[in-house]
Amino acid sequence: MSIGGGSAGRDNDTGRIEAFSDGVFAIAITLLVIEIGVPHVEGTTLFGALVEQWPSYLGYVISFLQIGVIWANHHNRFRFIVRSDHVLLFLNILFLMCVAFIPFPTALLADYLRGTERATAGGVYAGTLAVTAVFFTLLWLYAAMNYRLIDRNLDPFLVRAMTRRYVFGMAAYLFAFFLAFVNVAASLILIVVLALIFVLPEPGERTRPPREAR
Amino acid sequence: MSIGGGSAGRDNDTGRIEAFSDGVFAIAITLLVIEIGVPHVEGTTLFGALVEQWPSYLGYVISFLQIGVIWANHHNRFRFIVRSDHVLLFLNILFLMCVAFIPFPTALLADYLRGTERATAGGVYAGTLAVTAVFFTLLWLYAAMNYRLIDRNLDPFLVRAMTRRYVFGMAAYLFAFFLAFVNVAASLILIVVLALIFVLPEPGERTRPPREAR
Amino acid sequence: MSIGGGSAGRDNDTGRIEAFSDGVFAIAITLLVIEIGVPHVEGTTLFGALVEQWPSYLGYVISFLQIGVIWANHHNRFRFIVRSDHVLLFLNILFLMCVAFIPFPTALLADYLRGTERATAGGVYAGTLAVTAVFFTLLWLYAAMNYRLIDRNLDPFLVRAMTRRYVFGMAAYLFAFFLAFVNVAASLILIVVLALIFVLPEPGERTRPPREAR
Amino acid sequence: MSIGGGSAGRDNDTGRIEAFSDGVFAIAITLLVIEIGVPHVEGTTLFGALVEQWPSYLGYVISFLQIGVIWANHHNRFRFIVRSDHVLLFLNILFLMCVAFIPFPTALLADYLRGTERATAGGVYAGTLAVTAVFFTLLWLYAAMNYRLIDRNLDPFLVRAMTRRYVFGMAAYLFAFFLAFVNVAASLILIVVLALIFVLPEPGERTRPPREAR
Repeated sequence: MSIGGGSAGRDNDTGRIEAFSDGVFAIAITLLVIEIGVPHVEGTTLFGALVEQWPSYLGYVISFLQIGVIWANHHNRFRFIVRSDHVLLFLNILFLMCVAFIPFPTALLADYLRGTERATAGGVYAGTLAVTAVFFTLLWLYAAMNYRLIDRNLDPFLVRAMTRRYVFGMAAYLFAFFLAFVNVAASLILIVVLALIFVLPEPGERTRPPREAR
Repeated sequence: MSIGGGSAGRDNDTGRIEAFSDGVFAIAITLLVIEIGVPHVEGTTLFGALVEQWPSYLGYVISFLQIGVIWANHHNRFRFIVRSDHVLLFLNILFLMCVAFIPFPTALLADYLRGTERATAGGVYAGTLAVTAVFFTLLWLYAAMNYRLIDRNLDPFLVRAMTRRYVFGMAAYLFAFFLAFVNVAASLILIVVLALIFVLPEPGERTRPPREAR
Repeated sequence: MSIGGGSAGRDNDTGRIEAFSDGVFAIAITLLVIEIGVPHVEGTTLFGALVEQWPSYLGYVISFLQIGVIWANHHNRFRFIVRSDHVLLFLNILFLMCVAFIPFPTALLADYLRGTERATAGGVYAGTLAVTAVFFTLLWLYAAMNYRLIDRNLDPFLVRAMTRRYVFGMAAYLFAFFLAFVNVAASLILIVVLALIFVLPEPGERTRPPREAR
Repeated sequence: MSIGGGSAGRDNDTGRIEAFSDGVFAIAITLLVIEIGVPHVEGTTLFGALVEQWPSYLGYVISFLQIGVIWANHHNRFRFIVRSDHVLLFLNILFLMCVAFIPFPTALLADYLRGTERATAGGVYAGTLAVTAVFFTLLWLYAAMNYRLIDRNLDPFLVRAMTRRYVFGMAAYLFAFFLAFVNVAASLILIVVLALIFVLPEPGERTRPPREAR
């Protein structure tokens, strides 16, 4: 709480950014459900009407996974980022702007997944995730370049591995974006696979032996 | 905040999972109210129109209780779970996906509780809670098996008592799911009774004497 | 984080209850805005249509004040409540159930404040606040009786002053409930006055001299 | 947690105000997305219908930036404000009332930006931000006057620089309000420029050398 901007105050800064980001993640992920409407039954059973809404559930599951995995990665990254500055703050706001937007393309995808406009809806969906990945990568590159805001004791190998990981993720989401215009289903499958890859342990974590917390 | 993954950092991990989960609980529980619409009065009094909406209030109260009790149990469990790994993180995301979904079957139940489709609506409602209980039990079993992620000093009797508690709860919610197709009212009564049981002190807590906090 | 339930763990319990409650307060207070619809202009100016919606803004302001003041009082009270048990947890969930419900009667009030049904809408609004006050008072009485969960070093005079404060508040909100059926405007004015009274310093705080925080 | 109101308890008070405010910021910023509706395609392509909705995206981006920057400034200011009292609490509730209101004028702006009523919509939008700036400035003036609630070790030059900064911001937002009635586009551009100015480092921060956090 010292005003001169010592190390503790700066570390606290990343704590506040993390806490605020976590709030946005938690809210965006929970808002996904309000896009699923209660069906009106007309000339069918409720069960049939609920089954008919499968694109809404699919969108819910995929977007929940995406935001959950983005949260976990953001959280992991802020264990390395130990200082903050105004550019980081601003990049983080732009990144959160993308995350908080996700419920909209999710609803769009659910509404248009079965129609002739599915490529547009899938493109907007994958495109939103791609732009989110771009900002996440920019955030990391800005923080990591010359150890600007990350822990100076980090192994350079680990930093480079992270950079490769995020640049690869960004490229893969961009590929999913273009794929949506060819085949929406393939694009969505790729997106789910990417979430499952990014929830896996990171480089440098795999060999860490289990230890007792206290 | 050490990068090598010492004990403090790992403990902090469960703290972040808890904080994020708490956010999702708090938002899901508060979103329940937006499913209750303001009635339009036509040929009746406002009082009559409000009374007519009783299934919405019933759904609100039952789901609020459920999410509140799930929150309390999740919170109690993470006092035992002192380490985290990627499988726990992933199981927790799947578990939260169920919790955040609850407002949808609640709205469904409110809309169809009095119609001929009440069994379907009640089944979806009880089924959502049952799947939530399944993931909660899986989360615990994964963490507790061979003391993988729980405190190594925990009494084995207590760990087994917890496992029994959660397996019993899971079975009871699955029973409520099947019961909904026979009698929705009985299924809902069972669900409320289960919430009241699970808000009770846990095994090992009953004999704890009251002490002064400081 | 000790498992045996020592003093630190218990104190932490009230911390988790507070954090979860704060989440519900923050979400309920922010959800108030989504009940205000964008007007459709037909045969009038947008300015006229916006002015026409004044009951929505009035409801927003009054409910925001109420939830803000309830939050501040809940927060102040949990500085005295230093232990928790399952009854407190349950009473707190019932209390939060009332707080999270407030957006619904607010929307009801906004829609019916100018019609012939204003007494019903005002009664539901004041009634919700009265039930909230009842649960808040029960929470306090349960915690304070025989110093069950409050700090044992608290001055008995202060405890009794708090009890009187909350019983008075409860009675006043119940009076506002009955008043709504006679005169809605008077009931709302009383509710605003109550919020302004309860945001004032509490007994025992007034004479506290300003000090330097560090 | 001492009851007598020592320095730690007071400092903790500002922590609770900050945490609650952060919750409101995070929710208000994330709720912006639910005002963007999924378009219904009639006689056009989905792409065309999405492009047609550009005022909604513009409103989302501008309001997200505004709330993000307001959050950062509020956060920075509470590093100086180390004590709280009831007036600060009340001013902060009024300030949050404005922040949480922002999704409504954003939706209004999106709906009316292209019509003949754009001046009214723009005026309500800029006016909401102006009133928010007024309450933020009042909050600061109340806390800073005679070092009432701020750190007594703060450089008087820094305090005066902050006051000038906020009074300037308040005046600029009021100017944007009046500008909206002349030219909405110019008003919005000014609002974006103001956000970009206020995300810049504050006086006294620019010369701070980067240091290692630990």
